[in-house]
Amino acid sequence: MSHDVHVSVEELRLSDELAGGESRAPSADVAQYALWLGDDALILSQQLGGWISRAPELEEDVALGNIALDLLGHARSLLRYAGTWDDRSEDDLAFFRDEPDFRCAWIVQQPNGDFAQTIARQLIASTYMYELYSALRTSADETFAAIAAKSLKEVDYHRDHAVQWALRLAGGTELSREKMIRALGDVWPYVDELFRDEPLIDRLEGVAARPSMLRPGFDAVIETVFAEADLEVPAAKASRAGGRRGSHATPFGHLLAEMQVLARRHPGATW
Amino acid sequence: MSHDVHVSVEELRLSDELAGGESRAPSADVAQYALWLGDDALILSQQLGGWISRAPELEEDVALGNIALDLLGHARSLLRYAGTWDDRSEDDLAFFRDEPDFRCAWIVQQPNGDFAQTIARQLIASTYMYELYSALRTSADETFAAIAAKSLKEVDYHRDHAVQWALRLAGGTELSREKMIRALGDVWPYVDELFRDEPLIDRLEGVAARPSMLRPGFDAVIETVFAEADLEVPAAKASRAGGRRGSHATPFGHLLAEMQVLARRHPGATW
Repeated sequence: MSHDVHVSVEELRLSDELAGGESRAPSADVAQYALWLGDDALILSQQLGGWISRAPELEEDVALGNIALDLLGHARSLLRYAGTWDDRSEDDLAFFRDEPDFRCAWIVQQPNGDFAQTIARQLIASTYMYELYSALRTSADETFAAIAAKSLKEVDYHRDHAVQWALRLAGGTELSREKMIRALGDVWPYVDELFRDEPLIDRLEGVAARPSMLRPGFDAVIETVFAEADLEVPAAKASRAGGRRGSHATPFGHLLAEMQVLARRHPGATW
Repeated sequence: MSHDVHVSVEELRLSDELAGGESRAPSADVAQYALWLGDDALILSQQLGGWISRAPELEEDVALGNIALDLLGHARSLLRYAGTWDDRSEDDLAFFRDEPDFRCAWIVQQPNGDFAQTIARQLIASTYMYELYSALRTSADETFAAIAAKSLKEVDYHRDHAVQWALRLAGGTELSREKMIRALGDVWPYVDELFRDEPLIDRLEGVAARPSMLRPGFDAVIETVFAEADLEVPAAKASRAGGRRGSHATPFGHLLAEMQVLARRHPGATW
């Protein structure tokens, strides 16, 4: 299976780097930051996986499925790194943490909804991730720098995919435009959280990408897309989302239950 | 996104072949046979997609996700070919046919269940598909031959994946072994349907792979696996499954509704 082999080779290379001399076990703060990033990728991946054979076009199923697998790859690298701090595996972190221990932002927890809602969520998440991994390539932490360099190429495609669809929906039929506008309004309250500088960031100078510094790049891309699509920035109040501190809303509990039920049914099983 | 690019290149090549002079529009019988194969791949793909971020291990999510996307690729090639008969697109066939027009065997309609049930279903489906595409490489129909040659490499991996897991579960804990045995019993009634020679097959001599001829190869692989895992062939009565004639059981209606709801909500939309 060609793509799997491809992914494995890249991941092996990354594992070698992780195992290499330049990378030590991270501090508690570094591990926590790795959870921010890894949980965002993990939850968004799970959500997009739900589209396989359910998108409006089979071609789109393939695209969203591939994006889901890319994100799962990012999540695994980041969770593995986080887990080296306290000797937990990627699976321990994905399947055996409880809701308050997850650090994902609320944007990735928003429902798939209709296709326009998924695209609106993708537009925001992938534009943010592009700025994030761009900045993180020069992190003083070499593991973050390596993961960011690898992930950026993929996120570049994800962003392009979301932008093309946003333009197509906004410039399509009256109905598709209306749905795109409504979808952007639905996710807009969750934009601000992505760019909030939590105290953790102050302790990771040079290691983490400072969220507030990523905002201008994000805004520039979004403004260009909105101008081309003749869309206005939604007049939505920022939510009080507190994902980085483990405060989540009800739907996240359901997402998590779905993700964890099987692994938890037989904890410690050798399979 | 590396895997997507990879898939696209292969599919372009295949589309070129399809568009090339050697391939004409198929007869009604050939189109019908393409639906048998395409629907099997499509429905199995949809089912496996449900595992993304829900398998017992993240590594396994990636594997099942990749298998789902491989199968979706096979389905698209086969449905495109079927659709050239009466000028329907792959999306028309996937999203706008009703239940009695689907030709998938009942095995692919069996629920994901727990992980052992998915593996039992995969073991049977991929072992069957391996024999199928092996035989179909020498089909007098060059489109089938080309699709089979491409798909076989991927199905070879799928079969290997299922065999390794079946051995691991059967030889693991007492619980995992018990679950594997029960799972095989659950899917076994749907094996016979795959190897039944329907009247259509008589009309496609040299073009279709005769199902009954695939049985010895299938049995040989399964016997080897069962011997190594110390498993017995389940004593299950064959179901009266009639998927090739469009007769399906209730759960298939739900699967189909999930798959089609979005595309049908706005038929004819440009997106």
